[in-house]
Amino acid sequence: MNFIEQLKHSSQLNRSLVCVGLDPDLGKLPECVRGEKYPLFAFNKAIVDATRDWAACYKPQAAYYAGQNADAELAMTIEYIHANSPDTPVILDVKRGDIGSTAAMYAREAFDRYGADAVTVNPYMGFDALQPFLERSDKGVFILCRTSNPHSGDLQNLVADGAPLFEHVAKLARDQWNANGNAALVVGATYPDELRRVRELCPTLPFLVPGVGAQGGDVGKVVRLGCDADGAGLVVNSSRGIIYASKGEDFAAAAGEAARKLRDQINSYR
Amino acid sequence: MNFIEQLKHSSQLNRSLVCVGLDPDLGKLPECVRGEKYPLFAFNKAIVDATRDWAACYKPQAAYYAGQNADAELAMTIEYIHANSPDTPVILDVKRGDIGSTAAMYAREAFDRYGADAVTVNPYMGFDALQPFLERSDKGVFILCRTSNPHSGDLQNLVADGAPLFEHVAKLARDQWNANGNAALVVGATYPDELRRVRELCPTLPFLVPGVGAQGGDVGKVVRLGCDADGAGLVVNSSRGIIYASKGEDFAAAAGEAARKLRDQINSYR
Repeated sequence: MNFIEQLKHSSQLNRSLVCVGLDPDLGKLPECVRGEKYPLFAFNKAIVDATRDWAACYKPQAAYYAGQNADAELAMTIEYIHANSPDTPVILDVKRGDIGSTAAMYAREAFDRYGADAVTVNPYMGFDALQPFLERSDKGVFILCRTSNPHSGDLQNLVADGAPLFEHVAKLARDQWNANGNAALVVGATYPDELRRVRELCPTLPFLVPGVGAQGGDVGKVVRLGCDADGAGLVVNSSRGIIYASKGEDFAAAAGEAARKLRDQINSYR
Repeated sequence: MNFIEQLKHSSQLNRSLVCVGLDPDLGKLPECVRGEKYPLFAFNKAIVDATRDWAACYKPQAAYYAGQNADAELAMTIEYIHANSPDTPVILDVKRGDIGSTAAMYAREAFDRYGADAVTVNPYMGFDALQPFLERSDKGVFILCRTSNPHSGDLQNLVADGAPLFEHVAKLARDQWNANGNAALVVGATYPDELRRVRELCPTLPFLVPGVGAQGGDVGKVVRLGCDADGAGLVVNSSRGIIYASKGEDFAAAAGEAARKLRDQINSYR
């Protein structure tokens, strides 16, 4: 089973299109876990235990571990998910992109060192920067297309040959970069018109949709405009909205409840 | 002294525009260092000792450390350079780019955890993905503009409003992203016409120029087309051409000689 099938399977098992973003910032964690030897891992472990029935996948953001000198806790987190929730795949959010020989090292980092099932990548450098990821046909590769952040249009909305840059990326992913059937796209929730357009262009590619919750995207629009013909084909990421649902000792229960609510909210529009 | 001044100072001290790329691949290292407890660091240390009189700066490529589970050796390498060659700044090649809160974590990784003096970043996500780096005004931020790899034109050469995408990046860097005077560009040696064009657009921004040596770029063209009005304003990166100049026990001496030769070759065109 490759990643795309894995994700479909886990979505069906939990009837869920929720991606739980594991972006723990030590300064924002509940007091009760800060004293742990591995506080980020202790936090993640509790979040995973509380959300695994409502999640289609998990997405640790590599920067939070790299920036807090916590590489070991990232490895422990992914290992824990695989051991305790084996049907739920892990997307490691790294947004890498570099020349071939370097990208091959980044593929080793994500897939071999950390055991991720999928990654996010940046298309600015073109095909050979993505190839070492794409050629791992069992793994998923989410290519940044239209991102959710305020200045994402600086480049992504520049119009070339009558189409904005992000549409070129969508077409390249569809026509040239998907030889192994493992390409997917990152399309933000905060720009619903663009989300609809990318779905028109790519009826069958899976989408990772960040930007609901703290960033302001509308869940109903995401589902109506972003799902494929089967009412699936995407996962909606929520990080802060789930992991910081409560900052007290009940943080895990609150995260579980937030994940379940988001799942049900998404399903109500499908 | 901010990074841009530091780089100018070190270039003048060693009369050098050479950036030594520290991309050690364990499988390619000389037998004599593979048995060390910290083989990548032992290798880098010998390379730094042998090249420090001929280098304007060093550029460790983060992927080689991340992919080989050698984060500690990256930290040791940068610390060693700062302690033993204090005038020579370190560019950490990470090519990061993510939403603001995440980019802030990556800035912590590069500047606080590893103590780098500058980084490379990816502009695909726009200004807010670069801001946490740019606001560290003492640090340098090399923005990918026209990269050296074979498929770099997939997106970078798409023409919007009469100009290819990489020219838009050059203009954004010049006009909007350089408020702190610490923006710089990555422009590959393998596309000399584009290098000339970016220098026309940005007469004073510093360039990091990869792509000579193994990638085939022409040193003479790089210097003639890429230097600023003072015959400076760029550093030419060489990684494999220097660090693998010999694979025997004389690897360090050979690296020193290769760095000196590249320095002299560059200077002969200035």
